[in-house]
Amino acid sequence: MTMDEMKLIGYWSSPLALRIEWSLKLKGIDYEYVEETEPRKSPLIAKYNPIKKQIPVLVHDEKPIPESLIVLEHLDEISTDQNKLLPEDPYERARARFWAKFVTPVLVGSFSKQGEELEGAVKEAGEALRTLEQALGGKRFFGGDDVGFVDVAAGWFAYWVPIMEDILGLKIIDEKEAPALKKWFGEFLDLPCVKERLPAREKLVSHLRDLRKARMSG
Amino acid sequence: MTMDEMKLIGYWSSPLALRIEWSLKLKGIDYEYVEETEPRKSPLIAKYNPIKKQIPVLVHDEKPIPESLIVLEHLDEISTDQNKLLPEDPYERARARFWAKFVTPVLVGSFSKQGEELEGAVKEAGEALRTLEQALGGKRFFGGDDVGFVDVAAGWFAYWVPIMEDILGLKIIDEKEAPALKKWFGEFLDLPCVKERLPAREKLVSHLRDLRKARMSG
Repeated sequence: MTMDEMKLIGYWSSPLALRIEWSLKLKGIDYEYVEETEPRKSPLIAKYNPIKKQIPVLVHDEKPIPESLIVLEHLDEISTDQNKLLPEDPYERARARFWAKFVTPVLVGSFSKQGEELEGAVKEAGEALRTLEQALGGKRFFGGDDVGFVDVAAGWFAYWVPIMEDILGLKIIDEKEAPALKKWFGEFLDLPCVKERLPAREKLVSHLRDLRKARMSG
Repeated sequence: MTMDEMKLIGYWSSPLALRIEWSLKLKGIDYEYVEETEPRKSPLIAKYNPIKKQIPVLVHDEKPIPESLIVLEHLDEISTDQNKLLPEDPYERARARFWAKFVTPVLVGSFSKQGEELEGAVKEAGEALRTLEQALGGKRFFGGDDVGFVDVAAGWFAYWVPIMEDILGLKIIDEKEAPALKKWFGEFLDLPCVKERLPAREKLVSHLRDLRKARMSG
């Protein structure tokens, strides 16, 4: 769709990098994927994201754009009317941005906690997911009939929530409490562009287990 | 400029509400200001921002939009080409969004800390401000010759930083380290639309002192 040079610097287990990859694929934009082995220390990240020193970064014609939601906005601005992630109506755009911001910290809190603190964080994550259930309403996707900004922003929950439940040994959300969200989990994971860029489950589980152990002792 | 009904629900000491007021004034949009006496508990907030229960909220034709940066985007989308806050170039827009996100948590960290933790937080805030000094470069405003998205997002520093230094009894940034930023502090505070909507210094100092005391003991 574009002749510009697009390079995504990501890390295989990063849901924020996945947001960008899914968007690029949905929009049919060609890109080169660059895997960072040391996301926080690499010379590439020092060059392209010296302020935050984080992946993901989209490098568009050698111009670096960090922050996944800002990248999604950028991709929407440079793409044609087809496959826009944000809706057209200004109020609906504001709502989509609100939800995308809302979902970003969910799950993060529970990751390095244990005992009562963990239970509190899991309860909070569950509440956030029930709120999303309401936001989804009767729609197929948050974007309506098609995948939109909030779907791409929150899509990683579909894969990560059951995995986190396994790792933590706690239920984050009961299927009965969020039937629409669970249905959406299935629909989202079934999208070809999503399916082809998910990390292998076992590898991710073992990586997240190690990460959790390291954070709790650190 | 617009015949729509605009209502801003704010709180006098909220820099996030000020961001929105400054933007409305810069754009010449008429609005009604509604002061919340109990920002987190009021029926108005329960109605207009039930998810986050926070001010500020812009209510545009009875449709509520929370989150100050999202409101700024909204105001830009509904306004004519005059007085746009975001630049036109897609890459420059992404940069402006990056800096606006970057500045939001600065200062917050130092607010409820003391001792070594406070010193660490103040040092971090100082580093963030030195980074902003670089970002400002030789420009008058972050937006160039005119006030833009980042100016409105970060403008409260111009008033709050010296006040926070007084309250904490610590220097956050030395004038010599950030001459451009200090000059920008002065230029920004001198804008008519900014000047007319700043809280009285003494009232703010006393409010922030009380708040800090309450947070530290809480």
